[in-house]
Amino acid sequence: MLATKTRTQSVAHLGESALIEQIKFWLGPVNPPSPQGIGDDCAVSVALKEGNQLTTTDAINYGYHFDDSMNPENVGAKLIKRNVSDIAAMGGTPESAVLALLCSSDVSIDWLKGFFLGIRDTCERYSISLVGGDISTLKATSFSAVLTLNGYAEEPKLRTSSRVGDFIYTTGTLGGSILGKHYQFEPRLSEGQWLAKSPECHAMMDLSDGLGKDLNALLPENTMADLFLDQIPVSEAAKKLAHTSGLEELEHAFCDGEDYELLFTMDAQTDKTEFEKSWQNKFPNTQLTCIGSIQNTGVEKGPYLDAKTGKPIPWVYGFEHLKT
Amino acid sequence: MLATKTRTQSVAHLGESALIEQIKFWLGPVNPPSPQGIGDDCAVSVALKEGNQLTTTDAINYGYHFDDSMNPENVGAKLIKRNVSDIAAMGGTPESAVLALLCSSDVSIDWLKGFFLGIRDTCERYSISLVGGDISTLKATSFSAVLTLNGYAEEPKLRTSSRVGDFIYTTGTLGGSILGKHYQFEPRLSEGQWLAKSPECHAMMDLSDGLGKDLNALLPENTMADLFLDQIPVSEAAKKLAHTSGLEELEHAFCDGEDYELLFTMDAQTDKTEFEKSWQNKFPNTQLTCIGSIQNTGVEKGPYLDAKTGKPIPWVYGFEHLKT
Repeated sequence: MLATKTRTQSVAHLGESALIEQIKFWLGPVNPPSPQGIGDDCAVSVALKEGNQLTTTDAINYGYHFDDSMNPENVGAKLIKRNVSDIAAMGGTPESAVLALLCSSDVSIDWLKGFFLGIRDTCERYSISLVGGDISTLKATSFSAVLTLNGYAEEPKLRTSSRVGDFIYTTGTLGGSILGKHYQFEPRLSEGQWLAKSPECHAMMDLSDGLGKDLNALLPENTMADLFLDQIPVSEAAKKLAHTSGLEELEHAFCDGEDYELLFTMDAQTDKTEFEKSWQNKFPNTQLTCIGSIQNTGVEKGPYLDAKTGKPIPWVYGFEHLKT
Repeated sequence: MLATKTRTQSVAHLGESALIEQIKFWLGPVNPPSPQGIGDDCAVSVALKEGNQLTTTDAINYGYHFDDSMNPENVGAKLIKRNVSDIAAMGGTPESAVLALLCSSDVSIDWLKGFFLGIRDTCERYSISLVGGDISTLKATSFSAVLTLNGYAEEPKLRTSSRVGDFIYTTGTLGGSILGKHYQFEPRLSEGQWLAKSPECHAMMDLSDGLGKDLNALLPENTMADLFLDQIPVSEAAKKLAHTSGLEELEHAFCDGEDYELLFTMDAQTDKTEFEKSWQNKFPNTQLTCIGSIQNTGVEKGPYLDAKTGKPIPWVYGFEHLKT
């Protein structure tokens, strides 16, 4: 449970200064000594000597991204992994993060300890230092955390550099993440870094709001996506949801959020068999599917077409915050 | 007013995607083109060639850091300036920022426009690029924003490098910021950068939780602060508050938060007259006061003493988040 009614078990009992000391203890080696880590006005790091710096920020809110059915270790892990997935989507390497906690005074110390242990484990797994942060107060019962992650990439893969004729690929399976994958996912970090080295990979992003919404960002002006509907890797969770939701399995695969898979495009001249074979060797546990290609429309940015029938695919939306 | 009951005037009417387009429009030149600015999975910047990178993060929460009596331009400006003050405290230069919005669906578009115009103006003033962000949903009526600011400094001034014998200086006047200074303050950026070049300046921080709490961070182990109580620059606002609060003026000066002044230490051998004269030439509008010095205790980290009477000063606390 996020909140407690017993004052001595809540963060109000500790107060901000003592809580910061607790957090440093919970984080252990993931928090380097000040001024590299927590303790000064800013975190200080030696500037990178080459390449590009990447910066991304993502929040996690109680009642939206998690609830009391999820254990706090998984909440902490999810916050880190959401941001790692953005670095992965550019083929980068994560490096250091700062964390803003927005927290009501009734949040339980025990819950927060679990949250930070999840953060610590996940930071260790990806060699991320947690170097600083901020604590501020919200009304009861609330908890939000915002992580900003800095990383680097020699040559970041952008969303906007795909070309007409490119094949469209996705990793993993899509849809139904609400049944568990929304926090159990593994960011495709190694896959992204490997693709970033390939000149045949033209553009890349991660799927966070659903293929239906996100794919549009990979399409250049005057192009459309020709999709192999029978190739879309529908997840078991999407199939399960379709039994009760009244929606088609494919609608779940296109429109559910939080897949955290990579969506990327490969040059039209790519030897697909060769490419898929080397993928298989390198990432035997990560499914790879070619789901279509980018085609000219001649006019404006077009729809997604079913490559078999030539008919438009209706699932062009995805997860939208704020819409009610 | 932050919130509206008219759906067509709320962010729910726009939804996330359209709101992001609005925000890019509102920000104008402060948001560079993607991938340097908003639009890709991460913001991309060329890594610094030398010096140190600084990173700081700070939140602003409705009902805590601002309310409906404050106009949204000032809220946006305050968020930027709070973070700039942290960069100033290390003698750095701010560079680029990412912004996470945590927002209920009833937040008014008009209010948000004002907020972003305040951000734009303030970013322009300090040459900050706003390069990316995140939008997520909160329960009605809520608004929080978390800014993470990256900057750099050739040789950042730390909090922990003061020495026995150092003089303690503060800029401006202290206390009573609740009467207006909490958002009308000017971060001491030029002053911090100038001090960072001086080898006689040993340590520096900004006053955000009050002198009584913050000064402790500047004291090395086995030292205490000998303070000239009649020299503490008590603000007019602190004096005004003392009329009704039942507290002494000095307690307001020591314990009120959000002064956003610089607190720093100068080597014991500093020619104070010379130093204060060159400050006066360089920053004629920024008050400078020597409020005491750092002295050995021989034992553990000591209290603050009244230099005249040798008695301990009672105001050793400051603003604490979460304490109820």
